[in-house]
Amino acid sequence: MAPHQPTTPQSATKKNSNSSSSSSEQPIALTLGVLGVGGIGKEFLFQLTESHVLEGKIAIAFIANSRKEIRFKTPFVPSEHNRELLETLFDGTNDLAIWAKNLYEVLHVELDIVTCSSLLERQRIVLDDVSPSLSNDSNNHDISDALTKESLDAGNTVTTKPWKKGRYCIVDMTSSDEIAELYHVFLALGVHIVTPNKKCNSGPTARDQKCRWLSSMSWSTASWFYEATIGAGLPIISTLRNLTSSGDEVYQIKGVFSGTMSYLFNTFDGSTPFSEVVKTAKKLGYTEADAREDLNGQDVARKVVIAARESGWLDASIEKTSIESLVPEELRACSSEEFDDKFGKLYDTVIAQKFADAKKRGNVLRFCGSADLRTKELKVELMEFPMSHAFANLQGSQNVVEIESKRYNPTDSCCLTISGPGAGAAVTAGGVLGDVAKLVARLGDVEVLV
Amino acid sequence: MAPHQPTTPQSATKKNSNSSSSSSEQPIALTLGVLGVGGIGKEFLFQLTESHVLEGKIAIAFIANSRKEIRFKTPFVPSEHNRELLETLFDGTNDLAIWAKNLYEVLHVELDIVTCSSLLERQRIVLDDVSPSLSNDSNNHDISDALTKESLDAGNTVTTKPWKKGRYCIVDMTSSDEIAELYHVFLALGVHIVTPNKKCNSGPTARDQKCRWLSSMSWSTASWFYEATIGAGLPIISTLRNLTSSGDEVYQIKGVFSGTMSYLFNTFDGSTPFSEVVKTAKKLGYTEADAREDLNGQDVARKVVIAARESGWLDASIEKTSIESLVPEELRACSSEEFDDKFGKLYDTVIAQKFADAKKRGNVLRFCGSADLRTKELKVELMEFPMSHAFANLQGSQNVVEIESKRYNPTDSCCLTISGPGAGAAVTAGGVLGDVAKLVARLGDVEVLV
Repeated sequence: MAPHQPTTPQSATKKNSNSSSSSSEQPIALTLGVLGVGGIGKEFLFQLTESHVLEGKIAIAFIANSRKEIRFKTPFVPSEHNRELLETLFDGTNDLAIWAKNLYEVLHVELDIVTCSSLLERQRIVLDDVSPSLSNDSNNHDISDALTKESLDAGNTVTTKPWKKGRYCIVDMTSSDEIAELYHVFLALGVHIVTPNKKCNSGPTARDQKCRWLSSMSWSTASWFYEATIGAGLPIISTLRNLTSSGDEVYQIKGVFSGTMSYLFNTFDGSTPFSEVVKTAKKLGYTEADAREDLNGQDVARKVVIAARESGWLDASIEKTSIESLVPEELRACSSEEFDDKFGKLYDTVIAQKFADAKKRGNVLRFCGSADLRTKELKVELMEFPMSHAFANLQGSQNVVEIESKRYNPTDSCCLTISGPGAGAAVTAGGVLGDVAKLVARLGDVEVLV
Repeated sequence: MAPHQPTTPQSATKKNSNSSSSSSEQPIALTLGVLGVGGIGKEFLFQLTESHVLEGKIAIAFIANSRKEIRFKTPFVPSEHNRELLETLFDGTNDLAIWAKNLYEVLHVELDIVTCSSLLERQRIVLDDVSPSLSNDSNNHDISDALTKESLDAGNTVTTKPWKKGRYCIVDMTSSDEIAELYHVFLALGVHIVTPNKKCNSGPTARDQKCRWLSSMSWSTASWFYEATIGAGLPIISTLRNLTSSGDEVYQIKGVFSGTMSYLFNTFDGSTPFSEVVKTAKKLGYTEADAREDLNGQDVARKVVIAARESGWLDASIEKTSIESLVPEELRACSSEEFDDKFGKLYDTVIAQKFADAKKRGNVLRFCGSADLRTKELKVELMEFPMSHAFANLQGSQNVVEIESKRYNPTDSCCLTISGPGAGAAVTAGGVLGDVAKLVARLGDVEVLV
């Protein structure tokens, strides 16, 4: 139906077996397009089979990564019945061609597999899948430009929408800025977005605000949920959203936002050089492949910006954030190998001194982010805390976020504090699936009224 | 329109001024009937004027307590414009007759005031307000019996609904069991319920399950939200709901659930008799008028039951809860005065000994509740915690709740912990208003589709 030509189609023609989509008895509440099938994406697909509340209500139209896409001829319903099979089928590989082969041969699911040769092509394929009618439009190269505020106000999108509004959702499991660039198009089409991808809600303010606007107007039927962009599954975004929407005023958000940085400073006790702690963390898979991506504070800065925007400071940005990078200036441009080689020599004595100074004052070091909405300050920095402070008593890669507001403040009583694991496939996928469950709960109301 | 006769009607006939409902430009998303106007009810009405997100979207049809009801001729829209006036009008009195007089004389709001002579009459009046068409039915004495599962399945309620489904909400700010008895009727009529009242979701399981069923079926358009029944505005219910709906499995919930009991044990350091700490707390307004209602553990037991049910253990109940009451057996039946008089003599040495024993082990005492969903145990008891434990480091009347689940557990990483003030008018009303805001967000989706 879509006009583009798959470069390596593998059409399957057998009937679906009972174990796949056709077995569902209740109507599908939400159809998903899943982008990104790394560790979190796979975990998400498994968890989909574990929720009794969502059982039979969720179907998958396609699963894509940057190179390939599995397109189901009939949206596929993962369920308790095919949980074990799915685990086997998806285990050990992220290659969608192999998944497709397994799905067809074992579950007899009819599907196409499409290979994308470039990022631009991937975007086009996703857009085609979401919007077949739009793809027939000769202007579809400019679709995102065409969907302006003015054309939306004029109701143009309503006539072009290919899906029953509000029944389609893109689950963006990538960390791609290019996919984030498409959010406003999805939203304008009435397609929900659920994502742990921080690129849009911490990125350029104009793009972010366009998406906020598209998902919050009374005429909009598309929601944009991103609980897992801070603290994985911890209820931080939803709490900030709930406080502001109920008329509370957030004064400050402060926390240990990075599981990796939490682990490094909860573990570093001065007995082992800091660079050794980093190396161990890397071996355990706690850091990015290039540990500088954790140590430079950018990830924490993104989370601080997200928290600030969610609290009403819409033009908070990474550019406005004062960031203390733990990567020595001379190692910022070199290769990853050179960094690993030289980091200890350049930084171990610096951090050991800071640690010793803090210890003299009875304090410990924590790598924190904070957004102060009264003074308009965004900071990422190494801070000291006394042992009695909640931030000093973290374990492993625990995150903690402290919210101070008009209603929650130390003067009247105390702040609102949320802590727990803030990284890992299970809790991150769980946070994403929690957003999907919220969407389905909302749509339950709609069903009767349509 | 409703057939009952107000016993002291004070009809007002002037036109509404601009400062009241008629000034609203956008459509009203939700119309409220507010039951109970004590400290939390008043705070709720004030907070309604503070939310920019809800501004102009909420109207009030009636405000009632156990003796009187203000019935607005046109639903009244509290807004930023009349905030200060409302504060003045409602300040210092809970007498609805005076509120009505003020509203009419100062804001020129047209209203009736109805006096109820009995609880039964109040119930009837509320039902009449929610459902004028039903009140014309000669069987309306038996309305709650008539609304059986069978009649609902047959679609009977759809024909009798007087309100645009999903656009009406009862805010129950009472702690009345009699009002809780009406929940299933409201829900069957498509009327949402938002409440901090624990009587239904911790009460008889059959009644609770009827309400859960009525608010969760795909044909149901009524939601039942009760975030403020545990930890006031802390996001505990929503977190448990989100975990279970996304396929997580809650193993255990453990916490300091009572602000009063938290205060007592955070303050008691052995230097002052425990009964004196209770007396001070009572003077500060932290305890119930009869402190036994806090000390007997019933309030904590209710919260433990709520948490357990929310985690999927639907037949958890107070009867199944092992409760350690701090009220000596011989003082359970006496007058409140006799209790105040004798509590110290009978209990101060007992608790001082427990405190000293704990201290010897380096521990402190905390009054905790716990629900273990694996062993099916519900407990309320005085427990010991080492100083390094989060429960040992509470301040004032802080609540803390620790959730252990398949995804959040000490084996893989750590539990999910939420803490903050769990009592007080501002945070409790904020929790209720947060639920109202969630409802409005859901209804935003509906608006376009209707």
